[in-house]
Order: sequence, then structure tokens, then C-alpha cells
Amino acid sequence: MGVDRKGMRYSVERGLMDEKQLEETARRVDHSDSPPLAHRLKRSLRCSVPRLKRAVVGWLPVLYWLPRYSLWDYGMADLISGISVGIMHLPQGMAYALLASVPPVFGLYSSFYPSLIYFIFGTSRHISIGTFTVLSIMVGSVTERLAPDHYFLILNGTNLTGEVNITARDAYRVNVAATTTILGGAIQVVLGVVRFGFVGTYLSEPLVRAYTTAAAVHAVVAQLKYIFDVSPARFIGPLSLVYTLIDVCSLLPETQVATLLVSLVSLAVLITAKELNSIFSHKLPVPIPVELITIVGATLVSYYVGLESSGVDVVGEIPSGLKPPSVPNVSIFWEVIGDAFALAVVGYAISISLGKTFALKHGYKVDSNQELVALGLSNVTGGLFQCFSVCSSMSRSLIQETTGGKTQVAGVVSSVIVLVTVLKLGALFHELPKAVLAAIVIVNLKGMFKQYYDVITLWRSSKIDLLVWLVTWISTVLCNLDLGLALSITFALLTVIFRTQLPKYSVLGQVPGTEIYLDMETHKEVREVPGITIFRSSATVYFANAELYLEALKEKSGLNITKMITYKRRQEAKQIRRERRAERRAKKEAKRQRQALAADGMATDGDGVGHGGAVFSVEKEAGHWKEKDPQGSPVGGEPDWGGRENGTVFVIPARPNAQGTWEYLKRGDPDSATLGSISELDGDTTTLGSSCDDTLSRDLERMSLGSLGKWTWDIHSIILDLSTANFIDTVAIKTISNIFRDFGEIDVDVYMTGCQASVVEQLERGNFFSHSITKSHLFPTVHDAVLYCLSHRGATTVPSYECAVNMRSNTRL
Amino acid sequence: MGVDRKGMRYSVERGLMDEKQLEETARRVDHSDSPPLAHRLKRSLRCSVPRLKRAVVGWLPVLYWLPRYSLWDYGMADLISGISVGIMHLPQGMAYALLASVPPVFGLYSSFYPSLIYFIFGTSRHISIGTFTVLSIMVGSVTERLAPDHYFLILNGTNLTGEVNITARDAYRVNVAATTTILGGAIQVVLGVVRFGFVGTYLSEPLVRAYTTAAAVHAVVAQLKYIFDVSPARFIGPLSLVYTLIDVCSLLPETQVATLLVSLVSLAVLITAKELNSIFSHKLPVPIPVELITIVGATLVSYYVGLESSGVDVVGEIPSGLKPPSVPNVSIFWEVIGDAFALAVVGYAISISLGKTFALKHGYKVDSNQELVALGLSNVTGGLFQCFSVCSSMSRSLIQETTGGKTQVAGVVSSVIVLVTVLKLGALFHELPKAVLAAIVIVNLKGMFKQYYDVITLWRSSKIDLLVWLVTWISTVLCNLDLGLALSITFALLTVIFRTQLPKYSVLGQVPGTEIYLDMETHKEVREVPGITIFRSSATVYFANAELYLEALKEKSGLNITKMITYKRRQEAKQIRRERRAERRAKKEAKRQRQALAADGMATDGDGVGHGGAVFSVEKEAGHWKEKDPQGSPVGGEPDWGGRENGTVFVIPARPNAQGTWEYLKRGDPDSATLGSISELDGDTTTLGSSCDDTLSRDLERMSLGSLGKWTWDIHSIILDLSTANFIDTVAIKTISNIFRDFGEIDVDVYMTGCQASVVEQLERGNFFSHSITKSHLFPTVHDAVLYCLSHRGATTVPSYECAVNMRSNTRL
Repeated sequence: MGVDRKGMRYSVERGLMDEKQLEETARRVDHSDSPPLAHRLKRSLRCSVPRLKRAVVGWLPVLYWLPRYSLWDYGMADLISGISVGIMHLPQGMAYALLASVPPVFGLYSSFYPSLIYFIFGTSRHISIGTFTVLSIMVGSVTERLAPDHYFLILNGTNLTGEVNITARDAYRVNVAATTTILGGAIQVVLGVVRFGFVGTYLSEPLVRAYTTAAAVHAVVAQLKYIFDVSPARFIGPLSLVYTLIDVCSLLPETQVATLLVSLVSLAVLITAKELNSIFSHKLPVPIPVELITIVGATLVSYYVGLESSGVDVVGEIPSGLKPPSVPNVSIFWEVIGDAFALAVVGYAISISLGKTFALKHGYKVDSNQELVALGLSNVTGGLFQCFSVCSSMSRSLIQETTGGKTQVAGVVSSVIVLVTVLKLGALFHELPKAVLAAIVIVNLKGMFKQYYDVITLWRSSKIDLLVWLVTWISTVLCNLDLGLALSITFALLTVIFRTQLPKYSVLGQVPGTEIYLDMETHKEVREVPGITIFRSSATVYFANAELYLEALKEKSGLNITKMITYKRRQEAKQIRRERRAERRAKKEAKRQRQALAADGMATDGDGVGHGGAVFSVEKEAGHWKEKDPQGSPVGGEPDWGGRENGTVFVIPARPNAQGTWEYLKRGDPDSATLGSISELDGDTTTLGSSCDDTLSRDLERMSLGSLGKWTWDIHSIILDLSTANFIDTVAIKTISNIFRDFGEIDVDVYMTGCQASVVEQLERGNFFSHSITKSHLFPTVHDAVLYCLSHRGATTVPSYECAVNMRSNTRL
Repeated sequence: MGVDRKGMRYSVERGLMDEKQLEETARRVDHSDSPPLAHRLKRSLRCSVPRLKRAVVGWLPVLYWLPRYSLWDYGMADLISGISVGIMHLPQGMAYALLASVPPVFGLYSSFYPSLIYFIFGTSRHISIGTFTVLSIMVGSVTERLAPDHYFLILNGTNLTGEVNITARDAYRVNVAATTTILGGAIQVVLGVVRFGFVGTYLSEPLVRAYTTAAAVHAVVAQLKYIFDVSPARFIGPLSLVYTLIDVCSLLPETQVATLLVSLVSLAVLITAKELNSIFSHKLPVPIPVELITIVGATLVSYYVGLESSGVDVVGEIPSGLKPPSVPNVSIFWEVIGDAFALAVVGYAISISLGKTFALKHGYKVDSNQELVALGLSNVTGGLFQCFSVCSSMSRSLIQETTGGKTQVAGVVSSVIVLVTVLKLGALFHELPKAVLAAIVIVNLKGMFKQYYDVITLWRSSKIDLLVWLVTWISTVLCNLDLGLALSITFALLTVIFRTQLPKYSVLGQVPGTEIYLDMETHKEVREVPGITIFRSSATVYFANAELYLEALKEKSGLNITKMITYKRRQEAKQIRRERRAERRAKKEAKRQRQALAADGMATDGDGVGHGGAVFSVEKEAGHWKEKDPQGSPVGGEPDWGGRENGTVFVIPARPNAQGTWEYLKRGDPDSATLGSISELDGDTTTLGSSCDDTLSRDLERMSLGSLGKWTWDIHSIILDLSTANFIDTVAIKTISNIFRDFGEIDVDVYMTGCQASVVEQLERGNFFSHSITKSHLFPTVHDAVLYCLSHRGATTVPSYECAVNMRSNTRL
């Protein structure tokens, strides 16, 4: 930006334009010009070989890249990366299975099947599909809700023993988890097929980060029972986290010391090793598989020390081999659909954000909808094989990318590693203490706990996003992961309403010597255009703020419109009455004359004539006002204001502060409906002019004048700058119509500027334009409108558009 | 608008401005300039006699107007109006009590107490407070839910008889209704005190109209049992309306013929009389009290014919006198709080909209918050005296106004009429058939049924408002009045999201000869500024559409940014590799020379030098590109473009469609992370240039090029027009930062224009500005930015800013 801008000039010289002229000049395209629907449909349905090919490749991205896969170029990199990721899969799979409240082997299954499916359908090359903390804890909340321990107490004859039939319980839990996973996957596939990939955008970043942070809290609390080896009661519904925490605390005296020792040692080892790993990360080609080493070490120690016999809870039997697919439990679909939806949306949001990050870094494109389909199919297939919900995991994906993974072949390699473990090595982990897995879960949450710094960042950058963060966190912690998500999304969407609910309303003034208009309150060197109020709302005007807009306009323009309309109407009515009286006097006079002449009996329909006269007089008066207002300005003329430079003072007649005026009003004004129905006005109201001089009332009047607005009338035009309007709804259209009508009644002209094409269209469809409001009231820029107002109603001269005088600021002080 | 605008000129001549300069010129006020909070607080807490007086009058508006009440002027008008309204109160009160499922006399109470309270606290002079269909049916749904018939079956020893203990049931129902009313009133008072009067604005007009229309459906269905004298079962929850309707239909054979006859006759009489009333309305000083006449007539007929003995259900005993106040049933507060909230909001919304209409017509002001308080106190007081919820009724308020009512004294008069009836005449209505009251309810719903025409009107004017109407209607009919209201409000608020979720994105072009920029797609006579893409979203960019904005920008600008970044990075990497190779060759050469010289053993750290050289070369290349891009334009210079007129063709170097480019990409580009970490680049990737010539891949490449965007590069600047932004959130800030970063990487400059002051502030707070993105990238108008771009990067000459050439349109065809 090294250019000196001082010397550059902005120079425009053109004819004044309103919306109509602009549309003519720019030749706005009518909708009838666009090709008919049938044609467009036909075109979109046209089928060709390349089109078909593209569709097939779109659905099966593997067909695109696998034939081009160069084993020589990428093979080694993918192998190394795949092995690194596979090694991570093992401890994570087993640990997260604990979170999902299913036996560890199902975590391994979840690390195996989905990767294979994603390999075929996925478009991201770097994300690692598999178990993930947040989804696991979400699945866990479902399984524990639908299959709590006390459903599976063992019958001893007819009495319930305290013991739980763990086999039956776990089988049912696996079934519940798989069913939820299939349902969630199906939802993802449907969303992807109907191109609803944008739902992910509703989960804004502050929301997702707060949500995962809150999920981490749930995860930690869920692990406490393994860390301390206690059995807290199972709580359901809001605040269950708090109750669980209380229960765990009350059970702390029953802690298994051996388990706690194992937990603490594992935690210490893991934390130290991870820190070392990150310190030396730039010196290591692949990071040390800390978790796997811990697991293996712990298993060995456990085996030789015999931890199981000293009461430490261990993983137990891990069956070798895979299981045949099983059908989901359709009968619980309705009970888990909410959770399934939450799983679908959260899993997708996390995967797509990771996918997009890598895609941008490596210069390729991920297709949101295809990602939804791929993830959905991974979940559905996984669910059939008793997996629980999966998505991409940040930690594994980062490893996959940094160790040089180029394609999803790395995912397949990692699957193979998991498969080998399941088939051959699984049984070896029999002696692994569950506390070690719990420690792994907790240590892996470190990144999420770091997200509490967001609060500070957001406090500095955006209070509303901070609010979203806090509401999401609190609602997720207190109302659990399904309801919490729904509440958070709703709240995030409502913030948009809040933001537009209380917009900033400003009166704009001209930046001297330019065509730019800025808020007069926040800018010192900005001048009001005399006689004109330029009004802008910082937000779209729509139903939730239309009324505020109107009120703000009345306040900022300094016009108390209701009082002024009444004042004007009463003036008119007075005039009518005066004329009627004159008429009646004339009639009486005539009658007397007739009586004096004592003859004819010929009666004219005087009353009818009187009415006609009254109506005419109103119009006459209105006309009179109009002429008076611009004080000698050439109404209808064409002033050559551009060249003159003499800076004449612009004077607008301020109405007198008419004593007693307010009086009538506050007593319930009987004349106020006159313009609409003048025929209702009869002589019986002429007495109202009396009895208006008590002191209290005048006192109160002064008060009201102070509080309700000035009783002056020093503007002739109002310009509504609608450039911030994103759309316009029927309520806003009605409000603006009312502004035109009400201000029109006190002879203040209203204009609109800056409406974008879509807003103009909506105005047209909303029947906004009529014979009295035409497109001539719309201007493309504020400056066009100002120039028009000034020449139409305003100043006698505007020296090269530098208005030197600011009358209204006096009255404002 | 009789002015000929053709001759008026728009002429601006000023220096080019960016945001920084504008802020300096206009002297933007810093927040530190505004008075400190403590000062403002002190000022607002300052107490004075007039202030106190105003506050008292604000809370008790009656103190303002009653002392000024002129019996002479308004007395007669208010008396006539009050009597007319009082006469309407009687049948309506009794009929709506049926809707609320309480005995008719409580409807009369509800017409009595609240008017008196509103007289003291209300600010509207013309609305008539009392029973109203919608609120009554809402109360009815609560009473029937909490006190269904089968709770009050009479015990016959230990067996339940089929009979219902009507006295006990009605007593409990009254208690429930009063409790709900008190709670609703309290909510209104609280909302009013905390100045939450704006909640009414959430009920937009389409919503309220659809809601009342749906309520009318509920009211009709609720009356069917009285019309046919059948006893359908009581249903609760969603779809209860449908079930009730089905049950009534199945019970139709059991219809009481006598009752049906009474219903039909009453309906016929009422409809005919109402029609006559409206036809002759302009000839009648006050409308004929059709309903009262019908009630009196029906009572007389019933008494003399003995309808009760022929099985027609009659009103029964109406106790004379008033009842002492009773405390609400606090134990059911939690069960009715949802309904109470709905009652509070709906009642207020209806009252305030009526009040504002009359206020505007008669030139006075109603205070939303004071109205809430007044209505709330009316309800609380009413509830203590066993009334059910009240608000203003359209029909009565219209009568009150048209018969000449000037103040709420008319309300007091009508209360007196009701009081007299309750005290003396009530007992006379013993024989009145309930079917007549049902007929009155149904006939009074006529206006609401007319609202179905809204569907047609809205179809023409606004599809989204039509959607709101339909969703409100359907959800209210199907999910009843409380849940339906919640769903409707939520949906109405979400439409704002929908409207901004899928905005229209446009590329703007210049209207020739002006500084105005319009959508190029919808305007034919609009020219693209060569080399510059001006991009605008029709809606605020925020989290829900930020990603769409980015994608649309990429698509509309024709730049496939990811590919281009990769392309550029690879070019750079190639260059590095080339230089490395040359270096290595040089080293080898040197070594050979050294070996040839067979001496010293002194080794320089060649590798380090190599690295340095590579990095340097990247920078060199970038510099080289920059110089190439604007083809001889005076970068950093200060072109005097304003005056030249020779219309030179503006040429931007289009990058060649580099064969094999895409190839690398699809295989997972190993060089893409180079700029960030060039040290990772080692010799092992030099082999990648080979093996890229299979036919399928080239075929697919062409396809992708067709579908993913052109592979040209003919723009040098992007201008983001953010004039439609109402606010900017952190997600949008991040997105725009990314746009700056990504496009900056391929040497496309990005600028923003039209940000309103509040958006600039939010950008500042969101740490958007840095050393690379400064306020010099912001311009007040699009034209400023275009002029800057052109002089900075663009055309050699711009003849009086008429760009004659449009290079990109060729590539677009």
C-alpha cells in the first residue's frame, strides 16, 4: 500500500438519478427474460457420458484417485503414516469404548470398519476416521440411559441379588450403541443426498469449541469411576453431571487404592511422555507411540504383579476375530432419534472442519455433501458390525498428515494394523487395567481443556460470541450433550435476532466537500444538511424492530408526528369552522334579507355548498403551507445551484410553539378524525376552544414538551437510508408506508435510498408502490436524494454543495 | 414530484479516501470521548420535582387527564359510548365464559373489574378492556386440562357413577382460570416494569392474524358441543382438536334436536341482524345491540316455551352480587406457567396493536411499557376476584370509538352497566339456552374467518410471510394455543435466518458514466471494471453463511484459489529445486575442482547456504510476478489518469492452462506446504514431474476444469462490498481474513468497502486489522476502491473513468 493517495482524485459528473432512471439506464433485466422453468429443468436433466462419469466419480471418489495412485511416489509415505495412525487407534479405540460404555473390543471394531468405507467414499485425503471423544461420550450417554446396570440385576430364584449380569448388559449396550450409530449414519446420508451439507455451518466455531470443551467435562466425570474404582449411581436428565459428581465425591472414601495408584502412575507417565514428545517433535520423524507403550507396559506390569487379584478392574477377555453383522434394534429408534441427530450433526461438523483445513493447506477440495454421505455410510456399515459412532479425530488426523500421509490408503493401512490386533493380539490385553485407559482418555482431553482460553480471547474480540460460548458450555454441561446441543444452536441463531433487535439508529450528516454521509453523533466534522433528516438503522428493518425504527425516526427527526398531525388537522378544522360560521352568518344575513324582503320562499341548499366550501378550504390551506415552506424556493423549477457560491443562509419557517395546542390534545381531541370524515364535524364542537388555561396543565405541558420532543418543524424532507437492509418483510413495508403517509400529512417529503435490487423487488411484490409512492421516491445514493430534496424544497443556493448553515443544531442545543 | 430531474446534475470532485482518511476528515469520536459511566449514572439518578411528577404521572396516567376532564365536553359522548359497550359486554362476557369453561357469571365479572383498573393505569383512551375470544379459549384449554370432567365423578358409595359433580368442577375451574390469569398478569407487570414492551414486536402481523384465525377454529370446535348438545370426550395434547372433531362427528346421531333448532335459529337471527346493522351503519347513531336483543328474546322464549324441560341446556342460576377476593392456587403455578406466558404475550400484543391504531388516528401516544403494566394489573386484580384473562376486544373497542367515546370514562360507564346486571338482572338469564351463547361466539368470529383472505394477499406480496402465516396456523390448530404460539414465534424468528442463509451473491459492474455499481447479471447496461471483481452478498455475512460467501466469491471471481495457490507454490518449488540442482552441480563442480586441486580439506557449509538461497529465490520470484502482473503500470507511482481519454486496452497476463497441473494435485501434492516450511523440501520429490500422461486422467482433468472453474487469472483486485452487513461476527472476520490471506498469496489484492461505523468497530475489536491488513484496505465507497485499484494495479489509462474494454466477459461466454 505504498501509494500516496493524497493526489488521487475522485471526480463524478452525471445527471441526477432516481431508481426509475437508474433501472432504465442500467437496463434491469425482467424476470420474464430468464429462461422458462421447463427449459431449465430439461437442461439440468440432460444426460451425457461425461456427465454420468462425473456423477459416478462424484459418488465414488476412490474411482478418481485410486487408478492414478503411484505406489512408488506415495506408497512408503502412506505406509509409515498408516502404521503411526494404526498404533494410535489401538489405545484410543479401547479407551473411547469405555466412554461409550461398551467393552473395549468394540472400540477396536469402530477403528476398523469405518476407515475402509471412508476410503471408498471420502473426499478428504488426510483425516483419520475412527473413534472420537465427543461422539463416544454421546454414545455412552445413550447406552447408559437405555441400559443402566439395574436393568440387569441377576435373579436369585425370585430375589434380586446386588450383582449385575454384565454379559447381558454389555450385549444390550452394544446393540443400543450400534442402533444409534446406524440411525445417525442414515441421517447423515439423507442430509448429504438432499444437499444439506450447510447444516454444518450452524455450528459456528465458538459453539463447536465450547461444546467440545463441555463434552470434555462430561468425559472426565465419566472416567472418575475408573480412576477411583467406585460405582456411582446412574443419573438421567438435566444436572445429571452434577449429581454424578456429588455421588462420586461421597464415594471417595471407598476408593480402591491400588486402582488409584495405577491411575496416577499412568497419568504421570503419559503427561511426561507427551510433553517430551512435543518438545522433541521436530527431531523425531514419527512421534513416539506413548499410549501404546503405556498400554503394553501396564499390561505387562499388571500380568506379573497380578493387579487383577488385588482388586484392580481390568479389561478382561477380548474375543479374537470379527463378528458377523447384526440388524439394528428398530424398536428403540424413537428413543434414540434425538441423540442420533446430535451425533450426526456433531460428527459431521467436526469432520468437515478438519477436512476443510487440510484441503486448504494441501490445495484440494472436499465436497461437504459427499463428506456427509461418506461419513454416514461409514457409520451405517460400522453400526451393522456393532461399531459405535465415528468421525475424524483431530489428534490422529494431525499425525496422519504430519507423518507424510498422502491419501486414504494410510487409513486402510491403519485399519489393517487394527485388524491384526483384533485377530491376533487382542487377547494379550486381558490384564490391562481399565484405569490406564481412563488415564489415556483424560490425557487426550488436554487440547480441549486448553480451549478455556477462548473465554479470554472472545472477551476481547466479541462479547456476543463469548455469550454463545458460555451458553453452549453451560447448557451442555448442565443439560447433557443432546439437549445442550439443541439449546446451543437455538441460542446461536437467536443471537442474530438480538443483534438486529436493538440496532443503532443514526442521523447522517455530510462529510464536508464529499458525497459521503456519516453518523453525526460519532463524527465531529460532519454537517447536517439543513431541512433534511437522513436516517439510517444499522440493521435490516423487519418485524422485530420495525416499530423501534419508527419511534427512533420520530425521536431523531425531532418531529412529534402525532402532535403535529393533530395540530395541522385542528388548524384545518378551525378554518372549516370559521368558514362555516361565516357561511351561517351569511345565510342568516340572507334569511334576514329575505325576511326583510318578505317574499319568494325560494331556499337554496346552503348546507351542501358549505361542505363543499370547507373541503376546498382544507386543500387551499394545505397548498398555502406548501408554498410557504420552502420560502421562495423555485418549486417545480430547475435551479442552477451547481455554480453559485454565495452561501446564502437557508431559512425554514419554524412553527410557533402554539400556546394551548397541547391542551386540546390531552383532553381527547374531537377534531382529529376530520380529514377522513369532515362531514362528521358539526357546530357542537366549536365550544372546545374555551377552558384551557389552568396552571397545572400548562406546567405538565411544558414537561411533556421537554420529554416528548421539540415542538418545532424545521425539516422539509426525510431520507431513509436503507442500504443496510438485507431484505424487507411485509411489516417493514407497512411501517415505511406509514412513514410516507404520516410525514406526508405534515408536508414532509420522504425518500428512500440505497435499496439493493432484491429489496426493490420485495417492495414491488409487497405492493409498496402506488400512485402516491413511486420509484421516483427511491434514489440510488443518499447524495442523489439530498440534491433532489434541496432543489425541490430546499435551499435557494448550495455553493458547490457546501452547506454553510446549520439551523437545526441551534434548536437542538 | 413534478420536477424535471433530467437537467439536475450530480457532481462530486474530491480526493480519494480510504477509511483512515475518512475517519480523520470526519473526526470520528473515540469512545473515550463520551462521558464516563459514573457521570451518566449520576445524571440519570438525579432527582427533581418535575422529574418525580413526571414519573408519578407516567405510572398513573389517570392523574394527568382526569383533573382536566370536562364533563360538559366529553361527558355525554362517554356516557353513550359506555352504555353501548356495556350492552356488548353482557352477551360477550357470558358467551366467552363458555369458551373459558367457567360459569357465565364469571365472564361478567371479567367484564367489570379489569375495566376499572385499566381506567387508572391505561394510556389508551379508546380500547375496551374485557373478555376476548382468543384469550378465553386459551383459558378454556387450561381449565379443561387441569379440571376435566372425569376428575369430578360422583362417588356412589365406592362406585363411580357416570354423573359429574358440576359444582365442585366449576369451582375448581374458576380457581384454575383465576390462578392462570393472576400469573399471566404478574408476568405482564414484570415485563412492563423491566421495559420489555418490545416483546410484542415478535408477534408480527401475519403471525397474530394466523394465530387468531387458528384460535377461531378452536373456538368453533369448542362450541360444537353446545350447538349440538353432545358430550365429546376431552382430549389433551397435540392433535386434540382433530380428535375432538372426530368424536363430535361420531356423536352427531345423538344430537338434541331442540338444542340444534335453538342454535340454528339464533345463528340465523344474529347473522341477518348483523348484516342489516352493517348495511345501515351510517344511518344509525349507535348500532343496534343485536346480541343483547337475541339473548333477551331467547330467554323469554325459553321461559315461556319451557325449553329447559325439553332437554335444552340452559345457563342456570346466576348468583347475584359480587364475590370476595380469593387467593390464587399457588400449587398449580408450575403447571400453568406456559399458558400464563402465552396469555400475557398474546393479550398484550392484541391490546397494544389496537391501542396504537387508535392513538395514531386520534393523535396521542400510548406507552407500550405502561400498557403492559396496566394490562397486567387489570389481570392480577381481576384474577383475585375470579376473573379470567382479559385484553382489549376489537369489536367493543371499535364500538367505543365510533359511538364517540373520548376517554376511559366510557370504560367505567360500561363497567357500571355490567355491575347493575350482575347485581340485579343476572338472575333473569336463568333460562337462557347455552346454545344461544355458542351462536354468539361463532357469529362474533366472522372477522377472524375473513382473515383467510390473508393467504391470497400474502401469496402475492411475500412468500415468506405466507409461510409464517401457514406455519402459525397449522401449528396452532394442531398443537393448541400454547405450544402453537411458541412454535410460531420460533419459526418467525428463524425466517430471518432463512432469509440470510441463502443470500444472493452478485458481481457488480459499473453503470456507465456513473459511480454506481450494480449486479451484472440483472442489469444489461452495466460494465465490468477490467481486472477487478466487485463482490457483494445481499445479506450480512455471519456464521451461518460465511462459508457460502467464500465459495460464492471463489466461483464468481472465476478463481479456483486452491488450484492456483498450489500452482504457484509448485512453480516456486520447481524454481527452488532447479536452483538447488544448479547449486549441487556447482558444488560437485567445486568438489571436483577441489579434488582436482587435491588439497586443503576446507569444507563450507554448503547446505545452509543452499537453504538460504532457496528462500531468497522464492521471494525473488514473487517479486518478479508482481512486477509482471500490472504490465508496466506505475506501481507506487501516482498516475494522472483523470484526464486521459485514449481508451487503451487493458491487458492482464492470463496464466497458461498448464498441462499436467491438475495431475499433481489429485495425487496429493507433496509440495503444497512449501511456503510455510521450505526446509522440508528435499531432493526426493524431484521425480514427481514424471508419470502424468494417461488419457483418463487428462479427460477427468478437463471435466474438473469445466466444473470447478476456469483456469484463468485475469483479475488483480477483489473488492468486497460490505454495505449490507448489519454486524460482523468472529466467524465472518475469520473468513474475510482468510480471503485476504489466500488471494494475497496469488497476488490478488483485496479491499473492503461500505462498512458502516459499527462494523468497523467490530472489526477492530475482533483484531481484524494487522500490519498486513490495515484501514487503508477499507474504502467508504466502491468507486473509491475501484479508482484506487485501477491506479495501483490496473489500467494504464481510464478515460474520465469510462472503461471501454471488458476482457473477462470473453472468458465467461
